[in-house]
Amino acid sequence: MPLIVTGSIGIDSIQAPTGDADDVLGGSCTHFAAAASFFTKARIVAAVGDDFPEHHLATMEQFNVDLAGLEKRAGSKTFRWRGKYHENMNDRDTLEVDLNVLAEALPPVPEDYKNSQYVFLANTHPAAQLDMLNQFPGRRLSIADTMDLWIETERESLLELLSKIDGLVLNDSEAIMLTEDSNTVRAADRILETGPKFVVVKKGEHGAFLVHQDGHVVLPAFPARNVVDPTGAGDSFAGGMMGCLAATGDLSIDGLRQAMAYGTIVASFNIESFSLTRLTEIERGHIDERLEQFRQMTVIGA
Amino acid sequence: MPLIVTGSIGIDSIQAPTGDADDVLGGSCTHFAAAASFFTKARIVAAVGDDFPEHHLATMEQFNVDLAGLEKRAGSKTFRWRGKYHENMNDRDTLEVDLNVLAEALPPVPEDYKNSQYVFLANTHPAAQLDMLNQFPGRRLSIADTMDLWIETERESLLELLSKIDGLVLNDSEAIMLTEDSNTVRAADRILETGPKFVVVKKGEHGAFLVHQDGHVVLPAFPARNVVDPTGAGDSFAGGMMGCLAATGDLSIDGLRQAMAYGTIVASFNIESFSLTRLTEIERGHIDERLEQFRQMTVIGA
Repeated sequence: MPLIVTGSIGIDSIQAPTGDADDVLGGSCTHFAAAASFFTKARIVAAVGDDFPEHHLATMEQFNVDLAGLEKRAGSKTFRWRGKYHENMNDRDTLEVDLNVLAEALPPVPEDYKNSQYVFLANTHPAAQLDMLNQFPGRRLSIADTMDLWIETERESLLELLSKIDGLVLNDSEAIMLTEDSNTVRAADRILETGPKFVVVKKGEHGAFLVHQDGHVVLPAFPARNVVDPTGAGDSFAGGMMGCLAATGDLSIDGLRQAMAYGTIVASFNIESFSLTRLTEIERGHIDERLEQFRQMTVIGA
Repeated sequence: MPLIVTGSIGIDSIQAPTGDADDVLGGSCTHFAAAASFFTKARIVAAVGDDFPEHHLATMEQFNVDLAGLEKRAGSKTFRWRGKYHENMNDRDTLEVDLNVLAEALPPVPEDYKNSQYVFLANTHPAAQLDMLNQFPGRRLSIADTMDLWIETERESLLELLSKIDGLVLNDSEAIMLTEDSNTVRAADRILETGPKFVVVKKGEHGAFLVHQDGHVVLPAFPARNVVDPTGAGDSFAGGMMGCLAATGDLSIDGLRQAMAYGTIVASFNIESFSLTRLTEIERGHIDERLEQFRQMTVIGA
C-alpha cells in the first residue's frame, strides 16, 4: 500500500571515533525512505536547496522511492547538520545546525500521492505535521516522530497532534521529558492516554518497546560489533517498521511486533556505514537473513 | 541437580524514591539462592555474624534452600550495605559498606555438598572464588560473577579464574572496564578469548545478552512499571538462570536462552519490593505465567 513520508533531507558532516565524513547525504526523511523502500515504494515530500548535489540525488534514486514530491528550491539552501560522536558511539554533540529550507513551507503534495494510506510524519514542527496529516483524510495509519525541542516549546500543538495520530515514535529521554515520569514504561502509558493507539519508545543500542491498548512489544537491538555511524538509526528503524506495515497491512499487535523486528534489522545495517552507503549495498534477502539470526537469538520456548 | 552458591549474606539499608528500608535482608548469595530455589534446591555456603537476626534466618527458610553451610560466627558481625537510589531508580550511591565477616575465611563446605555439580561463585575476591571452585572437581557447570573492584585491583587472579570457569556474568560497565572496549558485544567477545565458554552481560533495565562459541542470546528486560527496589536484580537474574540450568541440565544455546528468560522474569519480581518480600509472595506458577507474557511480547515470526 502507498506510503508517504515527509521530513528532512540534509547534508551531514560527522566526526566519529570511526572516522570523519563531510557533506554526506543525511536527514530523517532520507534514512526513513531508504529503509522503508525494502518493503514498499516510499513517496517523499520534502525540499532541498539549489546547492543539493546531483550525486546525492543519484544515491536516493538507487532506492525504491518516488521523488515527485521532492522540490529543489531555487534561492534556498539545503538543511545541514554537523555532529560529533563520543567514544561510546551513543552520545553525540551537535556542533552546527542550519535549518535553511527546513524553515520554509513544505512543497505541495503531488496529486497522485493523495491516495496514500500510510502516512509518516518525521520529526518537524507539530503544526506542520498536523497540516500534512489533514491532507490525508482517507489514511489507514499515521505515525509521527518528534523531538525534545517541540516538547519544550510547542507542547499545545504536539498534544493536538497526539490526539489525531495512530502512533507516536520517540526516544526514551523524550518520553520522560514529555510526561515527567522517569519510568519509561509508565511514561509510554501516559502518552497513550493523550490519544494515540500505540507509542513506540526507541532506546538506541538497547532496542525499543511498544505499548498498545491490546498489549506490549519489547525487543532488544541486534547485537552490533561494527558501529561506524549511528546517525539515522532511529529513522531507519521507523522506516523499516512503517514500510513493513504498509506492505503487510497487518496492524495487529503481532503485525506491529514483526514490523518493529524488521525496523530493528534495517537500523542494524544503517549504522554499519556513514550515510546510506550500507543500505545501498544490501537487498531484502540480507534483511530476512539477519532477521532469522535475530529470531534465533531471542526466541523463548513456550 | 544440586546447585551450590557462595557469596554475601548481608543486612541492607536502602533509601529510594519509593521509600526507605532499614536493616533488611540482602546480599548477593541471598538474592541468588532465593531466585534459584524456584527451580532447584540451592545449597548455601556463607557466613554471618552473631548479630544476624533470627527473623532474617526465618525468611531464608521460606525458600527451598539448604542452610547447612551457613555459619553464624561468634564474635563476628554481618556484612552491611547502605545505599541510596536516584530518582531514575537505576543509578545509586553506596553510602556505607562494612565487610565485617565477608573479610574473613569462608566456612567449610559441608560433606554432603561435595557432590554439587552446578557451582555459582557470587561476587567476591577472585582468589576466594578459585579456592571454592577447586573444591568441586566433578562439577558440570561453574559460573562466576565479579565487580569493578576486582577488575581494578586483582586482574591477575581474575584472569586465572576466567581460564577455569565455564561462564562469567557481569555488568556492561564492568565488561567495558575489563577489556577497555566501549562496544559491549566486542568486549564480551574478548572476555570469551580469556577462557570461559560463555559470557553473560547484564544491562539492568535494558536486559542482558550472552556470547558463546555456538551463538548468541539477546533478551530485553521485562517491562517494569513498579520498581520499588532494584537491589539484587542482577543476583536474582543469575539465580533464576542457574537454577533453571541445574533443573533442566540443558547447557545448549537453547537451554541457556531459556534459562536467561527465566532469570529475567525472577528479577522482574525481585525489584517489586524491598529485600526478598515479593519473592516470598510468589510461586513457580506466577513465574511461568509472566514468562508466557514475556514470550508473547518478544516472539518474532519466522
